[in-house]
Amino acid sequence: MDFQTLLKNRRSIREFQEKEVPLSILKEIIQETCLAPTASNAQPCKFVIIQNRGFLKRLSDDSKQSLLSDLARNPESPLKNYEANLRDGNFNVFYNASCLIYVIGPKNIQFLDVDCALTVAYLMLSASSRGLGTCWIGLGAHVRDPKILGEMGIPGDCRIVAPIIIGYPASIPPASDRHAPDIVKVI
Amino acid sequence: MDFQTLLKNRRSIREFQEKEVPLSILKEIIQETCLAPTASNAQPCKFVIIQNRGFLKRLSDDSKQSLLSDLARNPESPLKNYEANLRDGNFNVFYNASCLIYVIGPKNIQFLDVDCALTVAYLMLSASSRGLGTCWIGLGAHVRDPKILGEMGIPGDCRIVAPIIIGYPASIPPASDRHAPDIVKVI
Repeated sequence: MDFQTLLKNRRSIREFQEKEVPLSILKEIIQETCLAPTASNAQPCKFVIIQNRGFLKRLSDDSKQSLLSDLARNPESPLKNYEANLRDGNFNVFYNASCLIYVIGPKNIQFLDVDCALTVAYLMLSASSRGLGTCWIGLGAHVRDPKILGEMGIPGDCRIVAPIIIGYPASIPPASDRHAPDIVKVI
Repeated sequence: MDFQTLLKNRRSIREFQEKEVPLSILKEIIQETCLAPTASNAQPCKFVIIQNRGFLKRLSDDSKQSLLSDLARNPESPLKNYEANLRDGNFNVFYNASCLIYVIGPKNIQFLDVDCALTVAYLMLSASSRGLGTCWIGLGAHVRDPKILGEMGIPGDCRIVAPIIIGYPASIPPASDRHAPDIVKVI
């Protein structure tokens, strides 16, 4: 697909078909994703792929529980906007997507958030070029149960940076509004 | 250009032709860049374009001075790897590129680094699709002289996240090595 068309066509997708994404395609996408630049070419990003529905629900539930604890400690946090959802037993932070990719990395990497975000941009575009939709689910990053983290093979020295849901879109929403580029100054 | 080819062809470029990038092309690139997703669609990124050679040198010098002060306060910081360069009056952190784009944003935005990094990935690919090279220059983000920040129109409530040099490559280096994707687990 032509790059400019791809940029214009990519959307954040939160409604998916039931159809699973073949693992071979997920691996192709991750391979392309690893072409992203990282600070000092450290390539710190690692990936966990979750397609098991029961496991996805456990991740959603654990993340919700962590966030409600955070909110109890800090009632004025922006999380209060999500409180009703977090308390709703039927709300799945991953929007019932059939696949989640966690982008994780070592806690001691200085620019880990930036490295992972550059990588995620590639992941989103690579997925979109294959007709797949994605969305970065910030609420899904707060899994803290050591048992669950262990089952995912996430080492103790790593943290989850980016939970990305991925799947075949149920429909393509209109492009979200964009303000004009804010060019502060040209010197 | 085909997206997969673009991904494979993009490089971090640190040697440029003298030829300036027309402002109209820089604006086209920034327009495409703003199609990147941001947390809650906040679109917090703003841009400063610098092409004035004298101003670029002032930015480089001020950043070097800030980093040397940081290093004096914390002699064991990873900055010590750059100390010889920082003390070299002839070293320009921007590799004498003819253009720099600062991606900046409000300090109070929770995920500003991530939002800007997603945006920068788009910027790099958009530039590459036009035959331009880019590089994220971490050392160039430390401009602290209020006069210089004022001349760039950077509001006091904003900070520089990403200094991106951009220009016509003098040559295309080979692709940097990549290790195999690290897929920790599939569940």
